[in-house]
Amino acid sequence: MDLIAETAAAVPPLDEAAMRAARDHHDRLTKPRGALGALEELSVRLAGIAGVCPPPLPEPAAVAVFAADHGVYAQGVTPWPQEVTAQMVQNFLAGGAVVNAFARQFGAAVSVVDVGVKTGLPPAPGLISRKVAPGTADMTRGPAMTPEQVRQAVETGIEIARDLVAAGNRCLITGDMGIANTTASAALIAAFTGRTPESVTGYGTGIDDSTHARKIKVVRAALTRAGGELGGGADGSAAAADPLAVLAQVGGLEHAAIAGFILGGAAERVPVVLDGVIAGSAALVAAALAPAARDACVAGHRSAEPGHAAALWHLELRPLIDLELRLGEGTGALLALPLVQGAVRVLHEVATFDSAGVADKA
Amino acid sequence: MDLIAETAAAVPPLDEAAMRAARDHHDRLTKPRGALGALEELSVRLAGIAGVCPPPLPEPAAVAVFAADHGVYAQGVTPWPQEVTAQMVQNFLAGGAVVNAFARQFGAAVSVVDVGVKTGLPPAPGLISRKVAPGTADMTRGPAMTPEQVRQAVETGIEIARDLVAAGNRCLITGDMGIANTTASAALIAAFTGRTPESVTGYGTGIDDSTHARKIKVVRAALTRAGGELGGGADGSAAAADPLAVLAQVGGLEHAAIAGFILGGAAERVPVVLDGVIAGSAALVAAALAPAARDACVAGHRSAEPGHAAALWHLELRPLIDLELRLGEGTGALLALPLVQGAVRVLHEVATFDSAGVADKA
Repeated sequence: MDLIAETAAAVPPLDEAAMRAARDHHDRLTKPRGALGALEELSVRLAGIAGVCPPPLPEPAAVAVFAADHGVYAQGVTPWPQEVTAQMVQNFLAGGAVVNAFARQFGAAVSVVDVGVKTGLPPAPGLISRKVAPGTADMTRGPAMTPEQVRQAVETGIEIARDLVAAGNRCLITGDMGIANTTASAALIAAFTGRTPESVTGYGTGIDDSTHARKIKVVRAALTRAGGELGGGADGSAAAADPLAVLAQVGGLEHAAIAGFILGGAAERVPVVLDGVIAGSAALVAAALAPAARDACVAGHRSAEPGHAAALWHLELRPLIDLELRLGEGTGALLALPLVQGAVRVLHEVATFDSAGVADKA
Repeated sequence: MDLIAETAAAVPPLDEAAMRAARDHHDRLTKPRGALGALEELSVRLAGIAGVCPPPLPEPAAVAVFAADHGVYAQGVTPWPQEVTAQMVQNFLAGGAVVNAFARQFGAAVSVVDVGVKTGLPPAPGLISRKVAPGTADMTRGPAMTPEQVRQAVETGIEIARDLVAAGNRCLITGDMGIANTTASAALIAAFTGRTPESVTGYGTGIDDSTHARKIKVVRAALTRAGGELGGGADGSAAAADPLAVLAQVGGLEHAAIAGFILGGAAERVPVVLDGVIAGSAALVAAALAPAARDACVAGHRSAEPGHAAALWHLELRPLIDLELRLGEGTGALLALPLVQGAVRVLHEVATFDSAGVADKA
């Protein structure tokens, strides 16, 4: 069996006994039952992911920022120069980006993984060089990736997740960088959810209306072309049948790597906090490969991108934060990390009615 | 001039120049403009509160948990024994409550302020004994507090805020404990927003439907009685005319203290992160006393209580977290603290396009 199939098969279902134990423990703690709302449900699921109650504290946490370029850039879907992908990688390595500021604040380590940046990047501390290709091909003209490139990128994500867990991390955080990657995300989300290009294509990092209209046309054109090759339409059926083939048609190298990263974390029973629309679209791929992988995902936030909401809806994941962030890099997921950690701390640290001598309600 | 009027008069308006500087600085940072959404707006307001850009990092942060009992308890509005207020104070002092777990996680200090717990509490480290009265009177039968009690409780809140800022804290967090205090909150919110008792009275810490129906009747009865005494109805006009008189009629000692705490923080140009419905109702009082005090408030979260949403709407404050929390103690505000701190860190730490050599968009 190959690494992808093997990892997908190794993703365990949520541990029902651990979840039951977490619910029972919550009911003994000195707080009204259910008073922590969605955070209480999250802590129960984290017990189910870990297979033990209380689950280990999700720390240390590690962000992996997967960086890659996109052939569809040629279609004029963004006003940013394509070199910004590589320039932002340098900014991450220098510690100057928002993801670095938040990672320092929350004590998370940042790894930058080059899975497909167009230009060469000199070796540097913190940079993991795993370039599969110097960017994808233009998905409006042909498949974005070859099947071999997809496989290699997904495997890279799996390996990075395994390595980070082996290094002692107990929470994985997705990050991404890639000029034009919201275009590929929209195409993936349309393919996996059956929604229209119009409804899932957003303004990304801030484009004008005419660029947005062009972006929708580009997504539609790519899906129509891909639908012909896959022998299906953009109704989700082809996506469900062969997720890696869909990824090859309209995905990005960072999307493929993040899908693998999710599988890898899930197989290791470690929660994976998802950032924005790029992670959301990659999670659709991971869940299509291994439905239980969805259960290991924590939706860090809901971004301003309409496709992100569609992806989370499809995955039935409730975002922890909803502040119209649209930055990427892993920033929204990092901001949710204290909430994830807090949810688990409650199970570790809070006194019970009995131990604290507090009367329960009548 | 007395302390309350003096403090209200000392609350400065937001500093427009500092806010403009923050907006300009954001536009130079290596991220798409506006990409941090509501967090970016928050950081601009924090500059306006501090009167300088970048504003100081909001750390260390201090939670003050104001504890008090309520005469309206006698009307059967909650299934919890009244002794739980004092028992939870002991739990806070022992470090066993959820507020303690979150405060440890985020490096915030917890002070517990007894402004009106019914039973005596022995001196203990971390306990600030400022008992104004052993609980309020039953607001369905007469005013909950005398004007002198209100004054003393509000002044206590102001003094606690001043002391915490003098001790070096750069962010204040509201906390509360008081069995039956969501009933007083609902009455205050109805009085200050003009909404009906039905629309602002919730299930608190978890009551059954018949208790909820009784709670609504109790709130309505208190407001009708108070309206007669104040010479106005529950339409907000009486509340606007004399906020302290409304507080005396249907408030709680912790509500009064938190209103003072907000004024005190605002006058010191330090942001005050509001917890749930108790803080929301107290913020209505503070904003009625000094409209600019609202600007120093950060809505930590929106709780499951319908009155809380009404209060935030009235105050035009957008909550940072919305996870159906309904615990109180300061827990929801503490969970928002990393977001508040992150918003400011961006202004301190993130590289500019120029300094990082990243190209801006076309």
